[in-house]
Amino acid sequence: MSTDDKVREVASRARTASHVLALATRATKDAALDRMAQALVDAGDAVLAANAEDVERAEAAGTPANVIDRLRLTSERIEGMAQGLRDVAALPDPVGEVLRGSTLANGLEMRQVRVPFGVVGMIYEARPNVTADAAGICLKSGNAVLLRGSSSARSSNTAIVDVLRSALAATGLPEDSVQLVPGDSHESVKALMRARGLVDVLIPRGGAGLIRSVVEESTVPVIETGVGNCHVYVDSSADLDQALEIVMNSKTHRTSVCNSAESLLVHADVADEFLPRVVEALQGAGVTVHGDERFAEYDDVVPATDDDHAAEFLSLDISAAVVDDVEAAIEHIRRFSSGHTDAVLARDQGVIRRFVASVDSAAVLVNASTRFTDGGEFGFGAEIGISTQKLHARGPMGLPEMTSSKFVVVGDGHVRG
Amino acid sequence: MSTDDKVREVASRARTASHVLALATRATKDAALDRMAQALVDAGDAVLAANAEDVERAEAAGTPANVIDRLRLTSERIEGMAQGLRDVAALPDPVGEVLRGSTLANGLEMRQVRVPFGVVGMIYEARPNVTADAAGICLKSGNAVLLRGSSSARSSNTAIVDVLRSALAATGLPEDSVQLVPGDSHESVKALMRARGLVDVLIPRGGAGLIRSVVEESTVPVIETGVGNCHVYVDSSADLDQALEIVMNSKTHRTSVCNSAESLLVHADVADEFLPRVVEALQGAGVTVHGDERFAEYDDVVPATDDDHAAEFLSLDISAAVVDDVEAAIEHIRRFSSGHTDAVLARDQGVIRRFVASVDSAAVLVNASTRFTDGGEFGFGAEIGISTQKLHARGPMGLPEMTSSKFVVVGDGHVRG
Repeated sequence: MSTDDKVREVASRARTASHVLALATRATKDAALDRMAQALVDAGDAVLAANAEDVERAEAAGTPANVIDRLRLTSERIEGMAQGLRDVAALPDPVGEVLRGSTLANGLEMRQVRVPFGVVGMIYEARPNVTADAAGICLKSGNAVLLRGSSSARSSNTAIVDVLRSALAATGLPEDSVQLVPGDSHESVKALMRARGLVDVLIPRGGAGLIRSVVEESTVPVIETGVGNCHVYVDSSADLDQALEIVMNSKTHRTSVCNSAESLLVHADVADEFLPRVVEALQGAGVTVHGDERFAEYDDVVPATDDDHAAEFLSLDISAAVVDDVEAAIEHIRRFSSGHTDAVLARDQGVIRRFVASVDSAAVLVNASTRFTDGGEFGFGAEIGISTQKLHARGPMGLPEMTSSKFVVVGDGHVRG
Repeated sequence: MSTDDKVREVASRARTASHVLALATRATKDAALDRMAQALVDAGDAVLAANAEDVERAEAAGTPANVIDRLRLTSERIEGMAQGLRDVAALPDPVGEVLRGSTLANGLEMRQVRVPFGVVGMIYEARPNVTADAAGICLKSGNAVLLRGSSSARSSNTAIVDVLRSALAATGLPEDSVQLVPGDSHESVKALMRARGLVDVLIPRGGAGLIRSVVEESTVPVIETGVGNCHVYVDSSADLDQALEIVMNSKTHRTSVCNSAESLLVHADVADEFLPRVVEALQGAGVTVHGDERFAEYDDVVPATDDDHAAEFLSLDISAAVVDDVEAAIEHIRRFSSGHTDAVLARDQGVIRRFVASVDSAAVLVNASTRFTDGGEFGFGAEIGISTQKLHARGPMGLPEMTSSKFVVVGDGHVRG
């Protein structure tokens, strides 16, 4: 059987499972999630053994240490996955929520109700915990899921999915609610992207290259996630002590995540005062500053190119520029931002209002670190990713974002005149 | 300049206009809509003269009479377009609506706010009134619009857009908020589909072929609209007199629209009683019945193929089959429905509940004609199309569906610990 046929076969089994899942009650789904959590803990040794195979293979292939760290599971990480499933069980069921409703002039009762998408495809990179997280979120939102993880995590993902499927079966829900996509090659990703009609939505999570290729090639609708070239703009009206703390937190709290700051803009009127302080603090924390001419006046600042201004470094690097005013900051952000998160640090209400209205990003932060753009921080309880597209969902996506809706219209012999 | 470059140029002007539109107040937008309406009425003779050119060209090309009818404008139709613009002015502004908001545990104030998409591309067929409708809906929702109508309506669309742009300019809003896409060839449609980053969303309106090609080829996100293979299922518990009326209304009230019924399913237990009545009534209204073996027992019923069951006829044709029960009806609908509108006619609450939960279509109707799936009927006041996809919007799309959202998070020196 070709890869295409194999992928279509699992997708078609997922479709059948989705018909059952769409009707499953919250009680049944929560019981399954709790059982999945317990099963993961119980099968900890087997999962760790499978993970050790992946780690060994990665080490033999000379994989960088930070990637191996993301790949490696521990008892604590397995307990974390289990707790994630229990947390999802504790969240409200989005399915069935009435989004709006009214009785029309002719007596028809109309309501718009949340329903599952049906079949969700996840394409993701090295971290095996995404396997359990995505399975839990999709199950709770009534969706069957096709998981296409990295081939480097193949043994771990297989072991985790086996455990989750057994737990599902024991609860009376279809095993095929959670499936791995067969095949390690890029062919299986391509087949998933072509499975329009069988797969309702694809969510790529990973590097910019992976996401771009899925967005451009897929005929299945895609939710684009997470590339973040996040800006912090320090206005002349900012509290500069506060600004320094926020810049440092945005850049250095964690560097490898999409909501860390990659670009700093400073109003010209406070440049003389703020630049020496911020350059010193950043460099003191090991950050390389890629600056414009104004920043380049300071020691060890590297001249910035347009590529630097556009970059999502995910490392101890930041691009930096001085701008004339908030309008110039907005222009710079329009040109270079990836539309994930941009922050304004200011006291002037007019400047804040202008920035918030004009910066067209998933999240606009005022006097706060860019690191707050996160489903957990926003109180969503679970996050499948951060959407940087404008259709359907924008920003951190929780359970409601994993649903569609339908209109139910009830009459009693109504015909149109 | 290549078609691609020309299209990118108008898209880039639209982007600039969208930055102004996003900040425009409701009062300004409503004043522009009222002025656009008045300008259309005032310029009626010029628009009719331009339309006469299109009609003449179409007649010379031997275009079918029903297509020419859709193309032809009259004073009444121009007044209708103007009234449509005034109606949109009277609707609430979706931009700025707070969708949710809370103060997080750490004191951050978080709110999710509706914002315009930015630049919307419309690709549509012969009816010139769509030009004014789409311009009005996009303007009110704060979006710049690129209009790519049919080349057969080129003169009419040019005249209408000229009038609308002058009215915009007179109100102080950017003319480039409303633009025609240059070029008549398919190349200009292709260029629009490739303008990712410049165009935020494409909405194709028209025949199934147009919509399929846009959905499959576009790298710009698409909202799929309107192909309707709508089913009416008559359960054994239905009031058969009522059912007969609803079937006739669903099929014959208007045949060329996406919410007319194309498929009839009848429960086996009432087949002997209902089939002769419904076949006679349909045939009496000039409808050709494409039936399964049970239906084919009646005179002049044509044997139905799978293609007939899958067809969106948009004509006086209907496919028809007898099914064993509601489960078989659901199976049939899963196989053949386009996911637009499907109706159940029944008294049995269990049957209704099962059908509503299991039929995964944009609208599920109970004891009512499929013809009710419509933005006007639902009270949305304006409709840009009926989405048959699951992402972003599903069913009739009004002003709120023409927006995205963003999170605005306000702190006072907040950093993540």
